Amino acid sequence: LCGLVRASGGLSLLKGHRVLLRSDPENLRGKVALLSGGGSGHEPAHGELGFFGFGKTTPSPTGASGVLLIVKNYTGDRLNFGLAAEQARNHGVAVDMVIVAEDCAFDQPSKAGRRGLCGTIFVHKLAGALAEEGSSLDQIVSKVTEVLKGVGSLGVSLSPCSVPGCRPSFDLPPGDMELGLGERRRGKESELENHMTNPDSQSHLPLKSGDSVVVCVNNLGALSCLEIAVVTKAAIVCLEGRGVVVARAMSGSFMTSLEMAGVSLTLMRANQETLRLFDAKTSAPAWPNLSSVCVSGRNYVTEPQAASARPQDDAHSEGPLSPVMRGALERVCSTLLEKQEELNALDRAAGDGDCGNTHAEAAKVVVDTLCTHTHTHTHTHLNLCVCQLYSLFLTAAAGHVTEGQSNAAAWAGAMHAGTQAMRRYGGAEPGDRTMLDALCPAVDELMALTTAPPGGQLAVLQTAVQKAASGAEATRDLAARAGRASYIAAERVTLPDPGAVAVAAILGAVLESLEKQK
Amino acid sequence: LCGLVRASGGLSLLKGHRVLLRSDPENLRGKVALLSGGGSGHEPAHGELGFFGFGKTTPSPTGASGVLLIVKNYTGDRLNFGLAAEQARNHGVAVDMVIVAEDCAFDQPSKAGRRGLCGTIFVHKLAGALAEEGSSLDQIVSKVTEVLKGVGSLGVSLSPCSVPGCRPSFDLPPGDMELGLGERRRGKESELENHMTNPDSQSHLPLKSGDSVVVCVNNLGALSCLEIAVVTKAAIVCLEGRGVVVARAMSGSFMTSLEMAGVSLTLMRANQETLRLFDAKTSAPAWPNLSSVCVSGRNYVTEPQAASARPQDDAHSEGPLSPVMRGALERVCSTLLEKQEELNALDRAAGDGDCGNTHAEAAKVVVDTLCTHTHTHTHTHLNLCVCQLYSLFLTAAAGHVTEGQSNAAAWAGAMHAGTQAMRRYGGAEPGDRTMLDALCPAVDELMALTTAPPGGQLAVLQTAVQKAASGAEATRDLAARAGRASYIAAERVTLPDPGAVAVAAILGAVLESLEKQK
Repeated sequence: LCGLVRASGGLSLLKGHRVLLRSDPENLRGKVALLSGGGSGHEPAHGELGFFGFGKTTPSPTGASGVLLIVKNYTGDRLNFGLAAEQARNHGVAVDMVIVAEDCAFDQPSKAGRRGLCGTIFVHKLAGALAEEGSSLDQIVSKVTEVLKGVGSLGVSLSPCSVPGCRPSFDLPPGDMELGLGERRRGKESELENHMTNPDSQSHLPLKSGDSVVVCVNNLGALSCLEIAVVTKAAIVCLEGRGVVVARAMSGSFMTSLEMAGVSLTLMRANQETLRLFDAKTSAPAWPNLSSVCVSGRNYVTEPQAASARPQDDAHSEGPLSPVMRGALERVCSTLLEKQEELNALDRAAGDGDCGNTHAEAAKVVVDTLCTHTHTHTHTHLNLCVCQLYSLFLTAAAGHVTEGQSNAAAWAGAMHAGTQAMRRYGGAEPGDRTMLDALCPAVDELMALTTAPPGGQLAVLQTAVQKAASGAEATRDLAARAGRASYIAAERVTLPDPGAVAVAAILGAVLESLEKQK
Repeated sequence: LCGLVRASGGLSLLKGHRVLLRSDPENLRGKVALLSGGGSGHEPAHGELGFFGFGKTTPSPTGASGVLLIVKNYTGDRLNFGLAAEQARNHGVAVDMVIVAEDCAFDQPSKAGRRGLCGTIFVHKLAGALAEEGSSLDQIVSKVTEVLKGVGSLGVSLSPCSVPGCRPSFDLPPGDMELGLGERRRGKESELENHMTNPDSQSHLPLKSGDSVVVCVNNLGALSCLEIAVVTKAAIVCLEGRGVVVARAMSGSFMTSLEMAGVSLTLMRANQETLRLFDAKTSAPAWPNLSSVCVSGRNYVTEPQAASARPQDDAHSEGPLSPVMRGALERVCSTLLEKQEELNALDRAAGDGDCGNTHAEAAKVVVDTLCTHTHTHTHTHLNLCVCQLYSLFLTAAAGHVTEGQSNAAAWAGAMHAGTQAMRRYGGAEPGDRTMLDALCPAVDELMALTTAPPGGQLAVLQTAVQKAASGAEATRDLAARAGRASYIAAERVTLPDPGAVAVAAILGAVLESLEKQK
């Protein structure tokens, strides 16, 4: 309670009691005060969702025009709140009680009746909104009693929970679930809504096509948010399949059972007036940030707009690969396929052992594309087929080589831009034992192509390839500081980095191809 | 994603993609669009907390004035978002990236750097507020980058999580915890804030007395709301103990790890401008309903007001018990003490076996009160000492017997009112195998006292006691339909109900006492 109150500006702790109050009791003057409660372990109910008036022994100092007790139908709760009500009446306080009993678990409820579950939070919300707008105690009781006829809940648990310091409250074999909170009815599949609305059950919620409902998907504790979203979708789709209009949906943790893995579903038949109260603004800390748009009937899918064609693509996409380009690509691919096992072996020393496979896969796609779509694919599209880093490299490089500017200087600029993008987004630097240890020294050398190199362009490429190869070889002595290999102890790695070796091989293949075609 | 979008009126699903959009893209015109994302399993991040612009392949159809990518510092995320950024730039879109890396787990972070954790939601919130009010892309990047220098996170897990369909991701022995998300550093106690702010750690968050912070206590998945509140209180108290001003606190599920039992703590140093943006209204469905009151310094405790004295109390509380009353009470108590084991034995057949103990405990308190506080306690105060049902009975009855009206008729009315309250709040009726099976026939007989009974008052009481005894005896043949005994099969119960036997004994004791005193 203290944690809740400290974090919630609108709540206050009644000294010496386990009672939370609104921190603005002066705003209750002339309004009905609400008092809710129950055992702990069901947070955020009741503290974060309740709309508190004043403690049970404090007769109307705030000038509230009456007190409504919101009680879940458990014998202990009824007796405790009943005692409070009788005491308050002895003190002259106008007090009334609403008993929430919306559990749909039992076909034939016992004498004790249906239990009060997550439907209680709807009562908190609606009664809170009515009280806030100045309704009388009788009006609130009358309205809430009417609404409760159309509220039903059913829970399933997939695990027990444990009272802190105690053992789990029951055993549940893996694969089983328990239908109905706290009762040992087990089923193999979820038929929450069917069970809830089955007219053969004395505790069913009458629901017919055309009815409008508010849905609450309540995490009993330990279900993941991902699972709750899956249940929420299923609940909405199932209701709509029966012709029911889902007016609002809320999902999250509202009435929990400690850390139980499970979910409860609460439905409330709703008319315009109910929805108005449901949508009313509240300061309750655990009330979700809901939209007031009707769930059913809303268009919730956006059609993707076609990506506008890139100007460079328009100019280039029709051109076939030049023979030089094609030859270089084919030589790169055959080299990568030849080196598949060598790269895998290097990668086994410090990684997944699939570095060769990744490069070979990419090479196969390129070869396939070259064979079957010679005239429709250009180099600017290949990046979709290879791995992230190459994609990034090629995407950043692509803009630097256009039809009007594809000379050696443009290629050097492209290599440089690609390398820079790889460094920026990949977070690695030369010396970190990555492909950059081969690529960076080679690119530094290639920058000589931006001016007229005295020894000719091919000599520059030859030197760049040598630098790449020696850079790759030098990674033997480097400790990995980036990528997966960085998690392996340095002494285990005595082979060169496979990514660097692959880069050196690719550049070598390009050189071979160009030398051959010269 | 579909469950999330269906339940959230402000979100839309991009057809054919795992991308959520705002359903009001027209409101982005002229504003910076935000794009966030990452792996699933961390819900409600990123979908429910992100403030979405448009998909990465759609260049500015909405007229947004740029795109900010909010990326957590994982190599894969950086590369994927980097690729998107390069592609968008090739399409002429103004795009920038903020990398969140606020993990405080490692004293010496690896080359990959600090990971991005729950601090990301602060970036979502602040950048969202800035974009909404029309800040430029540069302004947002600049502001968020500055704020991030004062953000730190640290998590502890008490259990692993499991990717759906897979085994748990790691083992954690009971009693151990893992400090730092995903890393195997274990400790026996939580020193989250000390570790986060330790200047010896390269990844520490600088924090000094007088600093103002926003605290986020994030449920990693399966911790109960009760536990989260305990952590929240501890976090606030610990910070305040160091002289830090807690400006805002939020707790709940924001950046989870599926169903992992654990918690992360995120701190953000905050100035007035940061708080203004933090407090700004948002339609993000998972953003909590926060108060904008400063946590530290707020008076969060209300002093209980003294209950106003009840008029009847004023008139009665000074009077000593009459000898008749005292004698009756003493006889009732000695009877209940004598019958302790008999009532326990009856209760063992269908209940906890402590019915006799409960009555004996109450009797001892009454005896003790009679001995030590003869002149300061009256019958109207005894109800605080006995069990719920008797309390309820006596509270409802008390108002009917006042100093000015304590004749036999008043006592009959009191008995009737008490019985009615027991029926109303307890939910049982005669025939349900409860104390009412002895009480109701006796009270029906006692109502003869409201007129002048021909055979005298004591004769009425004698008959009432006989009816109570035979009512109790008749419960042998009744199946329990209320209370704990209702869960026991009927054939197992062949003894009378202990509650009914106790009531008959109490009435019998009163009769004995009155006959003796006559």
